[in-house]
Amino acid sequence: MASAEPESAKEAPPPPSTAAPGGMNLFLVGVVLRFVVFAAAVSSVVVMVTSKQTVVNKLRGVPPGFPVEAKFDDSPAFRYFVAALSVAAFYSLVTGLSSLFVIAKPNCHTKSLLHYAIWDTFILGVVASATGAAGGVAYIGLKGNTHVRWDKVCYAFDKFCRHVGASLATSLFASVVMVLLIWISIISLHARIRK
Amino acid sequence: MASAEPESAKEAPPPPSTAAPGGMNLFLVGVVLRFVVFAAAVSSVVVMVTSKQTVVNKLRGVPPGFPVEAKFDDSPAFRYFVAALSVAAFYSLVTGLSSLFVIAKPNCHTKSLLHYAIWDTFILGVVASATGAAGGVAYIGLKGNTHVRWDKVCYAFDKFCRHVGASLATSLFASVVMVLLIWISIISLHARIRK
Repeated sequence: MASAEPESAKEAPPPPSTAAPGGMNLFLVGVVLRFVVFAAAVSSVVVMVTSKQTVVNKLRGVPPGFPVEAKFDDSPAFRYFVAALSVAAFYSLVTGLSSLFVIAKPNCHTKSLLHYAIWDTFILGVVASATGAAGGVAYIGLKGNTHVRWDKVCYAFDKFCRHVGASLATSLFASVVMVLLIWISIISLHARIRK
Repeated sequence: MASAEPESAKEAPPPPSTAAPGGMNLFLVGVVLRFVVFAAAVSSVVVMVTSKQTVVNKLRGVPPGFPVEAKFDDSPAFRYFVAALSVAAFYSLVTGLSSLFVIAKPNCHTKSLLHYAIWDTFILGVVASATGAAGGVAYIGLKGNTHVRWDKVCYAFDKFCRHVGASLATSLFASVVMVLLIWISIISLHARIRK
């Protein structure tokens, strides 16, 4: 049967293995996960930015009747967190939308996987470090640190801390999905070698 | 010419492209970088663990003659940092040594690249978040946060803060090298598709 094919068909390199079973499915899962990261990152930023709370007569050591305000931009770690998650949201939206265009061009899948995996790695580092930084500061707010006399504040700023906690949980989720995205790219690239 | 080849040679899959120009070099660079990560992570842990400092009559608000001690395990963020960097050191040593064995078996390069890239991504997330967490707490130690009356402490614990700073710089370096390692694996996998 093969010998009946014209010579040109024989010599042509095999097409990129985008039609590999599971390859397209993995690519689609990746696209969906990008929008999941986008939703998680946007939620995280919104919840953090709307965490502002003013309390009166609640925080120990403050004169009665004197209002005290807690907002995310009082802490450099929370500012970094909002900046990093905003970048991640923008990035995942752009790559999610561009993936939709790439789906229509199977020849571009391999190159896209390479570029996405490289940038995803960078964004993962940024999101993970921002989650760590905000988490470290939030933990002091929750538990305090008696060794250096940093008092806990979450007993007074209950709404603020609930927002920060929810925002951290969402960004941790986004970090895990970023790891999955990189794994999908790596496994897809590896699968194309063996096909 | 092609038709003169025996049928079996035609149908045999191409050998794994480990002999690709640059492929072996990239793999060797990866091995070296694993030992760089190991050295950086061990240094980071050692410098953090040896940061203990006791001061008398230096920290404001403490009665004269009363000694105050600062050590890394007073802070959950620093404990997490030491645990994460220890895991990264152990991991990079194990993968560095196993890479040395893989070098002798070119057929295993592709599979190794897949496994390393998957685990590297996980370790990057852990190291980046630990660096962020410790960095967030260290920044409060350095600058304080007047909004919640967390006083800075680095003016008193100078040696402690120098150690923490050096440890953070080293772990940031280790994180960057981890990103490079993942990039190398991804680029190597991609290069093998096209060969």
